[in-house]
Amino acid sequence: MKTLGIIGGLGPESTIDYYQKIIALYRERTRNGSYPEFIVASVNLRKGLDFMDANDLAGMADYLLQGIGKLVRAGADFGLISANTPHIVFDDVASKSPIPLISIVEATCAAAKTRNLKRLALFGTAYTMQGTFYAKVFSREGIELLVPEPNDQDYIHDKYMNELVPGKFLAETRSGLLAIVDRMKAKSDIEGVILAGTELPLILRDPAHNRIPFLNTTKIHVEAAVTEMLS
Amino acid sequence: MKTLGIIGGLGPESTIDYYQKIIALYRERTRNGSYPEFIVASVNLRKGLDFMDANDLAGMADYLLQGIGKLVRAGADFGLISANTPHIVFDDVASKSPIPLISIVEATCAAAKTRNLKRLALFGTAYTMQGTFYAKVFSREGIELLVPEPNDQDYIHDKYMNELVPGKFLAETRSGLLAIVDRMKAKSDIEGVILAGTELPLILRDPAHNRIPFLNTTKIHVEAAVTEMLS
Repeated sequence: MKTLGIIGGLGPESTIDYYQKIIALYRERTRNGSYPEFIVASVNLRKGLDFMDANDLAGMADYLLQGIGKLVRAGADFGLISANTPHIVFDDVASKSPIPLISIVEATCAAAKTRNLKRLALFGTAYTMQGTFYAKVFSREGIELLVPEPNDQDYIHDKYMNELVPGKFLAETRSGLLAIVDRMKAKSDIEGVILAGTELPLILRDPAHNRIPFLNTTKIHVEAAVTEMLS
Repeated sequence: MKTLGIIGGLGPESTIDYYQKIIALYRERTRNGSYPEFIVASVNLRKGLDFMDANDLAGMADYLLQGIGKLVRAGADFGLISANTPHIVFDDVASKSPIPLISIVEATCAAAKTRNLKRLALFGTAYTMQGTFYAKVFSREGIELLVPEPNDQDYIHDKYMNELVPGKFLAETRSGLLAIVDRMKAKSDIEGVILAGTELPLILRDPAHNRIPFLNTTKIHVEAAVTEMLS
């Protein structure tokens, strides 16, 4: 078995989601009663947000690489960053990392390709919706990504930071997010929504809404990781 | 700040409880918006249970020391094992560990002493209730520990292994556990109950029952750990 190392804490609620999903999926696939051995380095979310706010991408990459160094010394054979936003510096981090890293963006793109989805909405933090790191990977596969209207982006980002990350999941916010999905369906005929923030599947728990499928990036990332653990 | 390393996964649900409690308490004590950096090495619960079933305490100690080695290499300054049962080999592990370890038994004993409790029931796995590792520490402080009747021990152990560890928390089991508390109060006039299994506070969430206080060993352990992080 290959040992997985996880950069966690970005944010903590989604790290727990990864932790539970990895154990459940590993047990489902192995069916021998055993539990996976893996390592989590939980980092300081405040520091990550400060790097993002200051647009200090080199600082962000260095901080993630420090965490990866801990995982490597603990014996990780490969790693992942359990959050979407930090993937803004994924290429830089992956090229300097001593172990292979599984990208949540590439894993999600592969999942979209398998499902033959060609036109997808992208929900995430402002950094993710306004960044090019998702579009860059998806455009290579001919998949078009659409982001919400600017005021809807503000709504998602605000709710993400001030409710979801601190672990508040409100029915009202759920409705607000689904209304954005409906508007994008009506206006742009999207074929699905990428929940490109690992806290989003914690509030949008259904696999679809009004027949519009949701791509749960946490679930997709975990599936890729467990496949690698057992490869 | 001192870096904490945690041996987790024994079982996974209580590791999540530690994870959330450590972050919440750290944030409550620091109040500067930051999140703690710490490391979790999640180990194979099945392996731990096999060592216990085979009464292979040397194997258990070695396995825990392997995990501690990972934490040390990842940069942990001190550590803890996030479970009660493995504390059966705590003295051996702590004496061989390159970093100091915080014992859940000693932390709980200190908490009982502070609250001036002299006669306590001990709930946990069969290994914990039948072992001497709790009594040894508490007797030094003149605190008497009482274990449930043999058939009640069987009930607790069975529910622990087959429901709590896999994450099933049933109202019926909660009532069954509280009935044991009531019987021990009536028969032996206990002053409190040590929830000496880190899954027990996940089903007995109240701090007391019929005025009998519960000592939540997870909470006590986390308080000791966060105090050390910030010392």
